[in-house]
Amino acid sequence: MIDLNVCSVHCGAMARTQGSHSDITGPKVRDAALRLFARHGFAAVSMRQIAGEVGVQAGALYNYTPDKQSLLFSLLKGHMDDLLAAWAAEPTARDPVESLARFTRFHIRFNIERPEAIFISYMELRNLAPENFAVIEKQRRAYEDELEAILRAGVAQGCFEVPDPKIATLAVIAMLTGVNTWYRAGGRLSLDEVQQIYWDMVRRAVGA
Amino acid sequence: MIDLNVCSVHCGAMARTQGSHSDITGPKVRDAALRLFARHGFAAVSMRQIAGEVGVQAGALYNYTPDKQSLLFSLLKGHMDDLLAAWAAEPTARDPVESLARFTRFHIRFNIERPEAIFISYMELRNLAPENFAVIEKQRRAYEDELEAILRAGVAQGCFEVPDPKIATLAVIAMLTGVNTWYRAGGRLSLDEVQQIYWDMVRRAVGA
Repeated sequence: MIDLNVCSVHCGAMARTQGSHSDITGPKVRDAALRLFARHGFAAVSMRQIAGEVGVQAGALYNYTPDKQSLLFSLLKGHMDDLLAAWAAEPTARDPVESLARFTRFHIRFNIERPEAIFISYMELRNLAPENFAVIEKQRRAYEDELEAILRAGVAQGCFEVPDPKIATLAVIAMLTGVNTWYRAGGRLSLDEVQQIYWDMVRRAVGA
Repeated sequence: MIDLNVCSVHCGAMARTQGSHSDITGPKVRDAALRLFARHGFAAVSMRQIAGEVGVQAGALYNYTPDKQSLLFSLLKGHMDDLLAAWAAEPTARDPVESLARFTRFHIRFNIERPEAIFISYMELRNLAPENFAVIEKQRRAYEDELEAILRAGVAQGCFEVPDPKIATLAVIAMLTGVNTWYRAGGRLSLDEVQQIYWDMVRRAVGA
């Protein structure tokens, strides 16, 4: 007999396997949680509200996730998994200038396509349990390390002037992530124009 | 007879004038609210908790603020008032390059000195009532306009290359505000070194 309450705490995977609708309800739970956390904040949202948004009884929600903390962690970790996998799948460039251009365009596009995930990834870090925070923190560092490696390669090859690659990494990521606070599809600038303007500034900022 | 319940909704000013301790309790309420909002988030903090932190009865809190929304607005508006006043008090420079250097150093120092206010100013915007949000939004634009004017002056005088001063303004502010996410006093870099590294990147980014 399959225990219906066996859920994956950490990846939000679905545990019900007896011909239930869990394969479509699981993603619905995650979507509803993402939407509600982004709108009201993690602390203000109850499991009951999430269940209501999905259209299931509050008790049924526990078939998909053991608690709200697991749901938050699953969302933030899923987002970082996607980010790291998407960057790994980008074509690589040998030239550091070209690599930096790709990173700049990639980061802006990836973030703009996921406004709610980006929003809660920054807003709700403080609400992660310490052991969950440590996992996300490590993933964020892994992503930062990708950019830092590009900057260091550029410095080594004499194409960038960056006195402190670690700080420059954080500065560039903060600048690029800021796009999400003002960009609206259909606004004055196309995504391509935004990418071009930011690439121009990033390129200059690192002295390339 | 003085009505003890007459409180200023919008500025958090103290209304009790009959020899009470409101002149020291008012700021204590604001400090406690700032600390609790920054730690737990606006939605998760109750008026009762704030009263407990200050050391007064929950009912007594209403002598200092009509509700939690007014407290949040008062904190965010007070922060923006301080920011705009502090920038206005900075010595002005005729040279756009020098003006931009001053803005860069000013923004970093001002923010680093107020980590909790900066944190809730970004985190809790979504929890402002629409009419309060409009006020803060206007103040933020006024601050952004200060930087944009510097960039436009630099472009007009031929010392900056900035194709889109509005976007460059948002990019520079996002980059500089990012310092708060990693800077720790007593860490690897002094405030002066951080200011120098960022000024170097900002200067290059605008082609100066």
